[in-house]
Amino acid sequence: MNSEAWDKNLIVDGRGLMPGLSIDPVIFGFHEGQLKILLLRFRGMDAFALPGGFVHLTEDVDEAAARVLFERTGLREIYLDQFYTFGKRDRRDAGTQQTLLLGNGVELPGEHWLLQRFVSIGYYALIDFTKANPTPDPLSDSCGWHDLANLPPLIFDHAHIVQKALEALQKNLDDKLIGFALLPETFTMAELQQLYETILGKPLQRTNFQRKLLSLGILERLEKKMSGGAHKAPYLYRFISPTTP
Amino acid sequence: MNSEAWDKNLIVDGRGLMPGLSIDPVIFGFHEGQLKILLLRFRGMDAFALPGGFVHLTEDVDEAAARVLFERTGLREIYLDQFYTFGKRDRRDAGTQQTLLLGNGVELPGEHWLLQRFVSIGYYALIDFTKANPTPDPLSDSCGWHDLANLPPLIFDHAHIVQKALEALQKNLDDKLIGFALLPETFTMAELQQLYETILGKPLQRTNFQRKLLSLGILERLEKKMSGGAHKAPYLYRFISPTTP
Repeated sequence: MNSEAWDKNLIVDGRGLMPGLSIDPVIFGFHEGQLKILLLRFRGMDAFALPGGFVHLTEDVDEAAARVLFERTGLREIYLDQFYTFGKRDRRDAGTQQTLLLGNGVELPGEHWLLQRFVSIGYYALIDFTKANPTPDPLSDSCGWHDLANLPPLIFDHAHIVQKALEALQKNLDDKLIGFALLPETFTMAELQQLYETILGKPLQRTNFQRKLLSLGILERLEKKMSGGAHKAPYLYRFISPTTP
Repeated sequence: MNSEAWDKNLIVDGRGLMPGLSIDPVIFGFHEGQLKILLLRFRGMDAFALPGGFVHLTEDVDEAAARVLFERTGLREIYLDQFYTFGKRDRRDAGTQQTLLLGNGVELPGEHWLLQRFVSIGYYALIDFTKANPTPDPLSDSCGWHDLANLPPLIFDHAHIVQKALEALQKNLDDKLIGFALLPETFTMAELQQLYETILGKPLQRTNFQRKLLSLGILERLEKKMSGGAHKAPYLYRFISPTTP
């Protein structure tokens, strides 16, 4: 499916979609020591949102999440994990939704399906920052990276969804060894430690961290990094196990 | 809400419910060294199912799960945790659903809402086996405990839901210290160890297990258990932290 799915006809119609169900992916990237997420900014509104989407009747919900992710990043085959489903009765307010659509010239009657209650399935995705090509959807005028530590105001319960996604990422960092999906193919031990420290939000002791990660047998040591500096060049490493769940 | 919600009018109507959304609770109990779950058996059909329900438009999904649980067990304030949402396109088949309803004298046209696609939010609940009062719903002729190690055939993807619930329980056993919700108020160390071994599916070394659990500072030692046996009477313990998440 291309972005036509988001055109006026579909918005007014809703046919072919699961009613009352959305997908909200929290897409993590890591760049210059900062954990970042992708947010959409809506036209005519100073509001940011997770780059969500709907579920086609012909798709598994996991497939819908992968499609939404592809539409927003241009990437396929990336790490994607369902972490929680958000179902508070009042999590969306119809007024915000109406304002958001009005900003795009779409006026809907109060009983319209888009203004009803929605339950949203949260997914988090981990992508190599350097490979993504953020793409706005037809209702938004930008799609870009924002520092997790300094997010703008988000619509609905999206700040809560982001917080739960971060907790899931923290919890699964050791269990599933998923952090590598956020790094380029090769990295230094210092870069890996910085990633872990950023996600966990606390400093780690260097010797212990290295010993632990090396003991897992998942890192291949490559040549030294030629940075041109006068100081001792660090080794580069590569992750040698699959990062998919 | 009482079981009227499951009457013919509601089934034919569906008004006031979230469309395409169900709740499937996996209700764990522990008795005589066995981990058990509650299953419904449908009238006129040799099929068992998780005791699921629907979500009222006026309820948070967590509230819907608690209500369904209350309707099936008579218990409130029990440990309940969302663990995964099941959204495969073909997870339910309309034929089974139709047979199940026909067995109750309800015949539905093919386009009926109950025969459409459903996404189901999985919850697991942990209850003190001795306190539950299993109650069938209006479509089923029994609601009873079944050994997890020896389950009958289940409809739809319910066996998969049970498996994922067990994995979530295993994963959270140490993190959230939730196992105590499966025990009576007082228990011996041997009973606690047996519970852990049953959930984890492996033997644990007695001395290490005791040292670890006692070191957490969550157990209060009470008087000795007077069993009348000639052998050394074991101490009884009580859990002194809340078990809710």
